[in-house]
Amino acid sequence: MSATSASTPEQASSPGRSRSAPGRVMSGEMAEQPAVLRRILDEGAPRIREIAEEVAARSPRFVLLTARGTSDNAALYAKYLLEILLGKPCGLTSMSTTTAYGARPDLTDCLVITVSQSGGSPDLVASTRAAREAGALTLAVTNNSASPLAEVSEFHIDVLAGEEKALPATKTYTAELLALYLFVDGMRGGQGAGKAELLPDLAQSVLDRRGEVKALAGRYRFAERMVLTSRGYGYPTAKEAALKLMETSYIPALSYSGADLLHGPLAMVDNISPVIAVVTDGKGGEALQPVLDRLRDRGADLVVIGSREEVDRASAGFALPTEGLPEELQPILEIIPLQMLAYEVTIARGQDPDAPRALAKVTETR
Amino acid sequence: MSATSASTPEQASSPGRSRSAPGRVMSGEMAEQPAVLRRILDEGAPRIREIAEEVAARSPRFVLLTARGTSDNAALYAKYLLEILLGKPCGLTSMSTTTAYGARPDLTDCLVITVSQSGGSPDLVASTRAAREAGALTLAVTNNSASPLAEVSEFHIDVLAGEEKALPATKTYTAELLALYLFVDGMRGGQGAGKAELLPDLAQSVLDRRGEVKALAGRYRFAERMVLTSRGYGYPTAKEAALKLMETSYIPALSYSGADLLHGPLAMVDNISPVIAVVTDGKGGEALQPVLDRLRDRGADLVVIGSREEVDRASAGFALPTEGLPEELQPILEIIPLQMLAYEVTIARGQDPDAPRALAKVTETR
Repeated sequence: MSATSASTPEQASSPGRSRSAPGRVMSGEMAEQPAVLRRILDEGAPRIREIAEEVAARSPRFVLLTARGTSDNAALYAKYLLEILLGKPCGLTSMSTTTAYGARPDLTDCLVITVSQSGGSPDLVASTRAAREAGALTLAVTNNSASPLAEVSEFHIDVLAGEEKALPATKTYTAELLALYLFVDGMRGGQGAGKAELLPDLAQSVLDRRGEVKALAGRYRFAERMVLTSRGYGYPTAKEAALKLMETSYIPALSYSGADLLHGPLAMVDNISPVIAVVTDGKGGEALQPVLDRLRDRGADLVVIGSREEVDRASAGFALPTEGLPEELQPILEIIPLQMLAYEVTIARGQDPDAPRALAKVTETR
Repeated sequence: MSATSASTPEQASSPGRSRSAPGRVMSGEMAEQPAVLRRILDEGAPRIREIAEEVAARSPRFVLLTARGTSDNAALYAKYLLEILLGKPCGLTSMSTTTAYGARPDLTDCLVITVSQSGGSPDLVASTRAAREAGALTLAVTNNSASPLAEVSEFHIDVLAGEEKALPATKTYTAELLALYLFVDGMRGGQGAGKAELLPDLAQSVLDRRGEVKALAGRYRFAERMVLTSRGYGYPTAKEAALKLMETSYIPALSYSGADLLHGPLAMVDNISPVIAVVTDGKGGEALQPVLDRLRDRGADLVVIGSREEVDRASAGFALPTEGLPEELQPILEIIPLQMLAYEVTIARGQDPDAPRALAKVTETR
């Protein structure tokens, strides 16, 4: 694999530090996450609850979620919340059916949630506009309240993450997750952020354990592929971690729900294919147990992000401090060591996480 | 990569031939596809149309699709058909929300379509039963009318592919696609199979070009990864081709919609990362053009499955005979050279496509 990049890193924001330190922008934004989560809880939550109440009063029967890339993984997390906590049937949009094929479904009684960091992708704006014209209740979740997407949507939630400069999205992902949690919780009449109040401190305690992540990263310095798996609430985390690893380190990282892994891709896992399992502490982690057993039987190198007990049964891992945190909030925490891992693996391979080849921050797909 | 398999191939059906010929079972089933497509058109279509009319008369407002593995790619194809041809909002089920978390959404006015070759996976049976109890209209699409899944569903479509013995599913995939097409076409009042009548002969003409596929396969003998991409109707083909390549050859094969590829994974593509693009002749192929341009700019090795004109603009490819075939029917044809490619790459690597490591034909996920 080529270890260098021809593309230009975005200009650094603090001119006093050298531009040449690789990964400085991404690293700085990862470190902001506790403060961003705090800001959403303190400043964003009241408005999110108001919007949730207005949407709930309109009683949408079906929810469609539209997003791409990292935000698509946040949308998938919202799909689990909506199905499990609210019992709403949900779907993820196949955007080209609207933008390329001109499909105009009847979206009466549908809530369409579009998630986008920039709020600027033309296809997201077009498909959201089309959804609103087709009768849907539209909600945009973005990090830019002045964006075209916020403009065309009936409701807008600002995730308040502050400008994101690094190409690999980190703080906007956890901010989108928390904003979506507060929205869904608000729709079911949740009266306060509750256990979510624990997140900023827990996120900081994870960030403080950089040495552990760096040790794990050594294991993947020469990896030619990786497989990530989970079930339930942890599955969006596995997908987002795979995306983060690919866009920073260029290691092909495949993600599967544990059940899908058994339907074919397991053939690819052997003793030289490392597997990272996100074992959420709860029903998702329980449902993953047969998959973990199969992986151990096959001699896979199994690294677990989960409870201390699960880590101890694996080849290695990162024990998450999830005591007291309901399963549905754990994804906001469990992605952080995996963001850090993508960063450290990329540094270990001599590449710059701030400058992935070929990426633009606002992707102009149509 | 290890080139052998410790698992036992399924017993061959024709005792006169040697069991040791690698890939004989898969190869025989791929070759049956023209006959299976013919059988669905001749024997299956009238019953499928009746079911479609009964379902249409109940006017479902939303459609949920449930499946795993290869059948999940067939379900995704149906999602495009339902959204584009019928304007029905659709979603793919996150099965664990029902089976692990016990979510019980209100599914009144929902059509739930479960697609499964065997009709035997306990989680599919459980989630379909739960959907029916929750008020959904349920339809099973399977290759086994005596299966538990067919039993618990209100309606059942038999894809008439005959018993499938090879672990990598081939003939049941194209059979599921055609059955789903006829169902959706029946729901919109289509009066006959129409252009689908072209499929058996076209499929045979593709199968007859084994030499071309074998030449393409040489290119991937030493590949360490592959990227597959498409947009619109061809996207399920890209996903299914990636699954087929992985479960037979164990090459990590990543699939992305063209738009998602630009949102991150493009960083992974360079001059040693081969890309296969499925360029459907129609709006999906048009929407993919900017992605193909980006890939050519990056010097990617680009192999195209599509029209002769598109193949000529790529590094290599397989020209599909799609003249006269509407875009929505092309996926039934375009997967066939990719099934053949997975088979030939696996043979070239000295492995046995009939005996992928670690797979069972009926996956007992719960």
